Amino acid sequence: MNIILLSGGSGKRLWPLSNEVRSKQFIKLFKKNNGEYESMVQRVYRQIKSVDENANVIIATGKSQVSAIKNQLNDKVSVCVEPCRRDTFPAIVLAVAYMRYELGIDENECVAVCPVDPYVDTAYYEAVERLEKLAVNGSASLYLMGIEPSYPSEKYGYILPMSSKEVSSVKEFKEKPDTAKAEKYIEQGALWNAGVFAFKISYLLDKAHGMVDFTDYRDLYEKYDTLTRISFDYAVVEKEQSIKVMRYSGEWKDVGTWNTMSEVMSDVTKGNAALDETCVNTNVVNELDIPILCMGCKDMIIAASGDGILVADKERSGYMKPYVDKISTDIHFAEKSWGTYTVIDAQPGSMTVKIELQKGSSMKYHAHEHRDEVWTIISGYGKTIVDGMEQSIKPGDVITIASGCKHTITADTDMSIIEVQIGEEIAQSDKEVFTLDR
Amino acid sequence: MNIILLSGGSGKRLWPLSNEVRSKQFIKLFKKNNGEYESMVQRVYRQIKSVDENANVIIATGKSQVSAIKNQLNDKVSVCVEPCRRDTFPAIVLAVAYMRYELGIDENECVAVCPVDPYVDTAYYEAVERLEKLAVNGSASLYLMGIEPSYPSEKYGYILPMSSKEVSSVKEFKEKPDTAKAEKYIEQGALWNAGVFAFKISYLLDKAHGMVDFTDYRDLYEKYDTLTRISFDYAVVEKEQSIKVMRYSGEWKDVGTWNTMSEVMSDVTKGNAALDETCVNTNVVNELDIPILCMGCKDMIIAASGDGILVADKERSGYMKPYVDKISTDIHFAEKSWGTYTVIDAQPGSMTVKIELQKGSSMKYHAHEHRDEVWTIISGYGKTIVDGMEQSIKPGDVITIASGCKHTITADTDMSIIEVQIGEEIAQSDKEVFTLDR
Repeated sequence: MNIILLSGGSGKRLWPLSNEVRSKQFIKLFKKNNGEYESMVQRVYRQIKSVDENANVIIATGKSQVSAIKNQLNDKVSVCVEPCRRDTFPAIVLAVAYMRYELGIDENECVAVCPVDPYVDTAYYEAVERLEKLAVNGSASLYLMGIEPSYPSEKYGYILPMSSKEVSSVKEFKEKPDTAKAEKYIEQGALWNAGVFAFKISYLLDKAHGMVDFTDYRDLYEKYDTLTRISFDYAVVEKEQSIKVMRYSGEWKDVGTWNTMSEVMSDVTKGNAALDETCVNTNVVNELDIPILCMGCKDMIIAASGDGILVADKERSGYMKPYVDKISTDIHFAEKSWGTYTVIDAQPGSMTVKIELQKGSSMKYHAHEHRDEVWTIISGYGKTIVDGMEQSIKPGDVITIASGCKHTITADTDMSIIEVQIGEEIAQSDKEVFTLDR
Repeated sequence: MNIILLSGGSGKRLWPLSNEVRSKQFIKLFKKNNGEYESMVQRVYRQIKSVDENANVIIATGKSQVSAIKNQLNDKVSVCVEPCRRDTFPAIVLAVAYMRYELGIDENECVAVCPVDPYVDTAYYEAVERLEKLAVNGSASLYLMGIEPSYPSEKYGYILPMSSKEVSSVKEFKEKPDTAKAEKYIEQGALWNAGVFAFKISYLLDKAHGMVDFTDYRDLYEKYDTLTRISFDYAVVEKEQSIKVMRYSGEWKDVGTWNTMSEVMSDVTKGNAALDETCVNTNVVNELDIPILCMGCKDMIIAASGDGILVADKERSGYMKPYVDKISTDIHFAEKSWGTYTVIDAQPGSMTVKIELQKGSSMKYHAHEHRDEVWTIISGYGKTIVDGMEQSIKPGDVITIASGCKHTITADTDMSIIEVQIGEEIAQSDKEVFTLDR
């Protein structure tokens, strides 16, 4: 099957683990059978491949997520990066063009579009595969997945099908309702709109050509900033007459808050945490390397990362955003294409960072205008290039990099480095990238 | 007045701020008028000096606290260090001998002995001064302070006075009772035993000479390990017939647990912390430089340091010890005579530490057998001596110290250093101290 995964958003609803650069789909909270943890994007990718190992998976995303995706999925997936932020219709068109023109997939094949963030089991992706097959063989132009509601939620849009058959024409779409209206919709047999669509590649490319003239993916990419911001629902779904919905009744959960996330955590705690026997319905996620001890906590979520510590009543944690907006400080943790970056000390005039590089990865060749850097290698082997001079490095080696000095590192094994930055104006943006002439 | 402050103990009841090397009296939780925070030992010292600026204050303590005392009180106070741990009677005798023979105080003068850790106001030290004057002029050999009880506590010993006069002979001592007994004692006019005693210097030296033969402080110091472990209560108080108690009714609180400590915290939070408006009776003490956000917390204490994070119901926090015993890991924060030492990253084969030196201070000239160290100066000026070679240092300088290499640093201004330790066996105990030939 062909799947486009929409990996958007960045947010603070799972602060301090999610932040402006780390979206919730990259937080490793799900335990695999082998005991290791995986993120939502890793879980989804694994689930899709277990249903169809030949699936073409494309992740449609923005620039800020590319490093995290590459770090978590390596080069397994195709990543289609929006050059600037538009809405879901342009993003999906770009990804479909990528499939057609870069991957060379026939325009008579179908594709399914799925959000990356619902918590589901593999049966869901079997349903997605069925949906895609319907689009290939069926009579309608557009197929949607409708989730059988488990309660009258105010958080989702509703789809009213014509019949209660597994696949049915659509009578009407309903915006997010209040609880009373939701109850009424459910009585009428309505389904939640899961944001999952399947259609022929040619179908969407035709729609797109109606809005913008382009010859192939690269051409569309160049013209991307001229596209109107418009959602897929508004541009396509609501206007389409030839549309059917397939119902799905398996597990499907939105895990966008700590309260819902804690329901699907396989263990009560992750990381270095202890709960006394008087704790009730309390979850701890600890990314710090110091222990957390909880005593007498009731219905709470405690989450700690280099960015901060949340101690919240589970119900209240859903209202976190305005508070996080107020207190949020510099981001202390980031995933890079080469590994991770963790601030371990920050003060005026200096910042100390733990850099962890994955075996085989390299930083870009770059320089900083306003800061000196001192690297102390604490584990692993590799080589540095500093102002054109190449040098092998090993644990205990110290590399001093004055401001203006071009530098990079390549990790021959997994490596850990303590980087001390010194300068009056330390900023992420103080970075110029150069081409390495070799 | 002459005061001996007993600064004993180390403990985990205020974990993660107190630990094996940081006793609760060194935690800076009390706000001064100028907005700065002070520790219990700093507060007590300031209170005593505000009552009598000429007071001779001696702190009787063990080796592990000397660095913290010097760091917090500089050279203001005399510190009398037990060469090995005995009980309160030997410790008090040693401190009295120090007063007599090292400070040259006349043996007809009196001295008051006080524990360092009750939370009181200055009126308490005015009462201690009165108690000492009673000992100078009064008829009894030993004077005690009795606190008028505010509730039938099970935590204190009780003193039954002969009368309800301000100063009275003692009828009887009672061990820590259960609540019912405590109520009965209080009906009989009993007072809490505050552990405050006043007596003539000669009185105690005579008692001491009855147990061990010594000529002066240094001689007693040499013989200290031969002394029997015995408490002052058992060795002196319970045997003395000529004993009176002076009642005190001002503020007096034991702040040995987070629950009681939070009652006397001037602010609800200390450090980088935010509480939403649904939090009730919740205190936060945050020594980390990342923010803590609390939402919907009721009757809780949240305390965070480099050693760990406590999230506890206030009442439950009193039962912390067995849990802390189980989870406690390496100590990540220590006060040294030259400043502070904070572990900011620890992993197999390396440890990264932030070292903060006070202006004018020096480390001992020392070497490590099993680790290399890399110092990056992040702020301040000073000089290092590495294997006899002296060098001026400034921000950005890097000093590499191979294992076996003798080294020290002197801070000309306040200084901050990031120290990266690299070695297979990193241990606090891996340290040999040398004399610097100059």
